[in-house]
Amino acid sequence: MIETLERHRCFGGELAFHAHDSSETGTRMRFGSFVPEAAATRPLPVVYCLAGLTCTQETFLIKAGALRVAARLGLILVACDTSPRGLGLPGEDSDWDFGAGAGFYLDATQAPWAGHYRMGSYVDRELPALVERHLPARSDVRGILGHSMGGHGALVLAQRAPERWTSVSAFAPISHPSEVPWGRKAFTNYLGPDPAAWAEWDASVLMRRRAFPRPILVHQGMADQFLAAQLQPQALEAAAAASGQVLELHRCEGYDHSYWFIQSYIEAQLEHHARQLAIAPL
Amino acid sequence: MIETLERHRCFGGELAFHAHDSSETGTRMRFGSFVPEAAATRPLPVVYCLAGLTCTQETFLIKAGALRVAARLGLILVACDTSPRGLGLPGEDSDWDFGAGAGFYLDATQAPWAGHYRMGSYVDRELPALVERHLPARSDVRGILGHSMGGHGALVLAQRAPERWTSVSAFAPISHPSEVPWGRKAFTNYLGPDPAAWAEWDASVLMRRRAFPRPILVHQGMADQFLAAQLQPQALEAAAAASGQVLELHRCEGYDHSYWFIQSYIEAQLEHHARQLAIAPL
Repeated sequence: MIETLERHRCFGGELAFHAHDSSETGTRMRFGSFVPEAAATRPLPVVYCLAGLTCTQETFLIKAGALRVAARLGLILVACDTSPRGLGLPGEDSDWDFGAGAGFYLDATQAPWAGHYRMGSYVDRELPALVERHLPARSDVRGILGHSMGGHGALVLAQRAPERWTSVSAFAPISHPSEVPWGRKAFTNYLGPDPAAWAEWDASVLMRRRAFPRPILVHQGMADQFLAAQLQPQALEAAAAASGQVLELHRCEGYDHSYWFIQSYIEAQLEHHARQLAIAPL
Repeated sequence: MIETLERHRCFGGELAFHAHDSSETGTRMRFGSFVPEAAATRPLPVVYCLAGLTCTQETFLIKAGALRVAARLGLILVACDTSPRGLGLPGEDSDWDFGAGAGFYLDATQAPWAGHYRMGSYVDRELPALVERHLPARSDVRGILGHSMGGHGALVLAQRAPERWTSVSAFAPISHPSEVPWGRKAFTNYLGPDPAAWAEWDASVLMRRRAFPRPILVHQGMADQFLAAQLQPQALEAAAAASGQVLELHRCEGYDHSYWFIQSYIEAQLEHHARQLAIAPL
């Protein structure tokens, strides 16, 4: 069912990359996993890590400095690609912020993307089912986090299915995609021109409508080059106030949009997940 | 004197990449630095981090997971490129294990490499002088570590000038380059056919001749694909026994040659440097 492409011992556990045929995207998809040593004696909860525009299944695992922390906390990490690839669709590879590398973790309804660009259902259901069948993973709890476009994905997927997602956090998420250039471009092309369809994939709209049952943690760098034009954490904050969502939004002075920022706060985010997932640190 | 190309806040300190005109190589050289927050109140010791074949000044800083540990221990990290680049010398870019990306941290004496491929003197003197002038770095102590070709470099440079290098460690070093294919190819082309010249740049030969005044720490993965053919840690061990060198050689079961291995043991190595450099952890 899954083909393991490479395995490396790491922190006493195993870092691996896998490939499988996805029924959601109709393509061969790749993902990476880190399974800590502690999984030898008991199943561990998984935190799904969603990367941003232009990234792949490798980016977060290589650059976030997360493995040392996950090993200590007893968390499995799973990182997927940011879109299907290689479909040969018109325009698939022409933009860095749309198409391949920019699936936006939603289910496209518009031609030619519908039927393939289904990263929403892929991350929400297909990937966890696969992971829980093939890795020593708990299936009663799940965590999700992401960066930028992946932060949008984590917030949206958790809010759309709070019964399936126990814990959620984000780094510099695209908080209100319906109102910023990256989001409007993606939503128009994947979901069509009607903003009613966009609402179902917009973290701030969903949060205003209904609070997620557990606290949400967000870190945002204040020197982030995309802060004002694309990210708009204040929209998320206003939505949280409206619905009573417990939102811990940390404004991090001097930090930018890079993985140097992510690695500085990944320990805080994984500790949030470990707490929510009710694991005592090892 | 140095041009800073990018800066990112990281762990409360700063990750930066710089460029400068090198008098040793006659080229524009790049290096990266991580300066922890603790440097705001006092100069900190520097650990120079030498990468292996095909790597650049970015590789170690991105992949080794070292910054979290260096921030905690109060160590500045400096990572340089693995060779001069862009000289247009015949054969410079034709092999992955020789020429650009493969400077072997020595001073070439053979045409056309002599006068440019001087990574030995560059790392030993030019780069520390630059770093100690421009960063909040102590100049009374210095540490050096490296991986594979960079492990060879760290061991050789520290042993050649123990008065300048306080602490040394290595991951999977090319321990006895005179006797393995990577080393013989590089030494023949950079230093000429006479093995007497090779001895001055061979860690096992130098160690057999004279013990470094402080303990040396080495980690070697036992599933390393290059272990038997290229690395030969047993040569280092035999040399240490002959000269009375204190050598702590850890054979790490199941680990390969990758940065997944390095990140698993970087904390142990940086703690070794912190002890040798007589810093109390923050």
